[in-house]
Amino acid sequence: MDNLESAIRKLVMANRILGHEGVVDAFGHISVRHPDRPDRYLLSCSRSPELVKTADIMEFDLDSNPVDAKGRAPYLERFIHGTVYQARPDVMSVMHNHSYEIIPFGVSKMPLRPIFHSAGRLGGTIPVWDIRKKFGDTNLLVVNNELGLDLVACLANNTVALMRGHGCVVTGPTVETTVLTSIYLRINARLQIDAMHMGEVTYLSPGEIELSSQRNKPKVGDERAWEYLCSRAKVDINAL
Amino acid sequence: MDNLESAIRKLVMANRILGHEGVVDAFGHISVRHPDRPDRYLLSCSRSPELVKTADIMEFDLDSNPVDAKGRAPYLERFIHGTVYQARPDVMSVMHNHSYEIIPFGVSKMPLRPIFHSAGRLGGTIPVWDIRKKFGDTNLLVVNNELGLDLVACLANNTVALMRGHGCVVTGPTVETTVLTSIYLRINARLQIDAMHMGEVTYLSPGEIELSSQRNKPKVGDERAWEYLCSRAKVDINAL
Amino acid sequence: MDNLESAIRKLVMANRILGHEGVVDAFGHISVRHPDRPDRYLLSCSRSPELVKTADIMEFDLDSNPVDAKGRAPYLERFIHGTVYQARPDVMSVMHNHSYEIIPFGVSKMPLRPIFHSAGRLGGTIPVWDIRKKFGDTNLLVVNNELGLDLVACLANNTVALMRGHGCVVTGPTVETTVLTSIYLRINARLQIDAMHMGEVTYLSPGEIELSSQRNKPKVGDERAWEYLCSRAKVDINAL
Amino acid sequence: MDNLESAIRKLVMANRILGHEGVVDAFGHISVRHPDRPDRYLLSCSRSPELVKTADIMEFDLDSNPVDAKGRAPYLERFIHGTVYQARPDVMSVMHNHSYEIIPFGVSKMPLRPIFHSAGRLGGTIPVWDIRKKFGDTNLLVVNNELGLDLVACLANNTVALMRGHGCVVTGPTVETTVLTSIYLRINARLQIDAMHMGEVTYLSPGEIELSSQRNKPKVGDERAWEYLCSRAKVDINAL
Repeated sequence: MDNLESAIRKLVMANRILGHEGVVDAFGHISVRHPDRPDRYLLSCSRSPELVKTADIMEFDLDSNPVDAKGRAPYLERFIHGTVYQARPDVMSVMHNHSYEIIPFGVSKMPLRPIFHSAGRLGGTIPVWDIRKKFGDTNLLVVNNELGLDLVACLANNTVALMRGHGCVVTGPTVETTVLTSIYLRINARLQIDAMHMGEVTYLSPGEIELSSQRNKPKVGDERAWEYLCSRAKVDINAL
Repeated sequence: MDNLESAIRKLVMANRILGHEGVVDAFGHISVRHPDRPDRYLLSCSRSPELVKTADIMEFDLDSNPVDAKGRAPYLERFIHGTVYQARPDVMSVMHNHSYEIIPFGVSKMPLRPIFHSAGRLGGTIPVWDIRKKFGDTNLLVVNNELGLDLVACLANNTVALMRGHGCVVTGPTVETTVLTSIYLRINARLQIDAMHMGEVTYLSPGEIELSSQRNKPKVGDERAWEYLCSRAKVDINAL
Repeated sequence: MDNLESAIRKLVMANRILGHEGVVDAFGHISVRHPDRPDRYLLSCSRSPELVKTADIMEFDLDSNPVDAKGRAPYLERFIHGTVYQARPDVMSVMHNHSYEIIPFGVSKMPLRPIFHSAGRLGGTIPVWDIRKKFGDTNLLVVNNELGLDLVACLANNTVALMRGHGCVVTGPTVETTVLTSIYLRINARLQIDAMHMGEVTYLSPGEIELSSQRNKPKVGDERAWEYLCSRAKVDINAL
Repeated sequence: MDNLESAIRKLVMANRILGHEGVVDAFGHISVRHPDRPDRYLLSCSRSPELVKTADIMEFDLDSNPVDAKGRAPYLERFIHGTVYQARPDVMSVMHNHSYEIIPFGVSKMPLRPIFHSAGRLGGTIPVWDIRKKFGDTNLLVVNNELGLDLVACLANNTVALMRGHGCVVTGPTVETTVLTSIYLRINARLQIDAMHMGEVTYLSPGEIELSSQRNKPKVGDERAWEYLCSRAKVDINAL
């Protein structure tokens, strides 16, 4: 298990990778549960992921109050993270992003479903949360715990939930796994858009999804993929 | 409020960002209203945005006459800028571009509409101006004030107008906001093209558009996004 | 008018630009008519455009025989160039490429037509040449003058012709104009693919095409665009 | 014919190229038959292609047992390579990848077919192997010889086979040819997706496929393309 210092460094690396891979642009954020205190989580202050440094990582309690802000402004939507960690003890890392490819699935009736084995990790059910259903017209942002809890109720036991007209929340048992699930989420979305134009699509079966993705465990190959992603992001982890 | 020197520098940075992000190629231009004289605006001489330097920034009156050209050739379509500043005292920055993703919406009957919260800033109505309606066959360029005024009449009180078979005009209360609106305009266009193939689309409601985008004010997050965009463009603003 | 040395240098730069912009991959070639001898043309030896150097530029007569090969192997399809120069005294530069975006238009019944003013330069008619019509099954390559002359008969007086299952030929009054026409050809193809999914499309009218593109003359803005393209290709033209 | 050292170096270069060109991401692998022992093949240990070094290249017998692992972990799916080399003495190089563009063809009823001459090399028949047909629910990976032999039976005498919900296997007479076929496979997939939306498509005829691609021989232009791909990958082959 990571100690605090290495957890922070890995989280910074995750931010850089997500920026480099285009999963996020100026917006989007990834957190990790505190390695020593399961009632706390770590998340950058309000900054674009590609620019995050170790000094930007803040500590929050599960109500998303900063433990020691030191003048740093937190993300407005940090409540997504806190409420997931409250409801899901199995989750060790949470990501919120606006990957462009997934937006169309949030605003149409077309369910996003794994179509190739690399996306088995998304799970068989990807619910869509519509903030409007309970809260009417809003600016669509999850800016308090009440909104977060409604989103988390929709996420339920799944790995990923889409947010209508907004983005998604991705969960995982480690930072690395959450990053990779976020990457394959957008790739699967892109491929599904193309495949849907070709007539009937054969999706992964429930059994194939189960076998190609052990729920809440790091996946075979994640380590190899992490080495690759770190190399592509061209970040010296010791200089973060 | 910016003084003239910092306004020029920010405008140069905006040019570089728009080039780097692919909002413009060799063509397209962004201007800012003069910080001290609301009857003047600042705009580069005729040069591709990615190559613009501070020495290229010219000053124009609202009829788009150069104040002191110093031998520099102005853009043929500068009249887009002057006529918007005349008609819209609330507008502090104007952009004209040919973003590829928006062209299909200008030549079809499909209205461009915000489908996710980041694009709420586009506003609920994006009119399409067809130069042919009043002027018949032309080379489609807005090369005088008469053409500009017709375009501006179509733009009316909206943030963005498309130009059939040509491009768009984007307005904003600051350079930063105009840049970000231009970026999310093309992203929303791309996403809408994909979403339209999936059956009925849930667009942002009028209330959501209003709440996710305060008209004519810089948006929450614009500052974070600007830091990110400057970093990506890899430009030393002090060396412009 | 260019002298021979500057014509060669500009041709090398054109090769680099076309590689950098993705108009060509390993394949495709651009030529220029000899500045002093209209019965000759200049074209690289068989090499990928992004790697072409001044020493690679060969001279050919209009039957596409090398004037002094010096051991360099010519492109198999140089006959495209020679036969165009024979038939079209107005043409000073010829390009052959396989831009991916245009291939679908060559293999379907959908005509490629200008949908925005930057593509007015393509002209109102873009014929599709099918080698199979006269020659039956071949490897689709234009490897002799007989094939070239059949292609040129299809091109007729137009600026661009598509080649079914293969690519296109683009002509122009200068190297710069031919490069820009090649770039906007693929952009227009991409945009038209997207626009066609949105219902009825308003293409440029014949009058707009005429006015936005003076046939066989360099276009307004080509100079600005050339400066931009040279800068993007990051090539020191003096070191070619 | 390559000796062992140059074969290893070329294989490393092929890995880098495939990474750089986006044919593979963190996953996918390419092998070459041992230049001196046709009952052996060379393949990297379990590492992302873009990171492979000469020291990573392992030797396997045709049952895919490592000859001298020296502690290196092999790819789980190396059995794809061994079983192809067993069944196809004409094949000198094998690639397995998950190119995104091809996935839609593996999960729909739409056959992937060459639509332009550069893709003639794919051959006229590209079968789709569905692991589920014989083995029911699995994690979709080819992790033993029994699975590999079933895939190879589907591949039969063809150059390429798709794997439903997974990726493809590509074969060739040299490493260079296999790399180029892998590249044009994904390009053809992308173009076919676009072309299918335009009505009836004219594919290459069987005669054109035969003439544009001599089966099991390096293709004209492969050498030029290899020079280009090495240059793009920016790898000093002497420093691998």
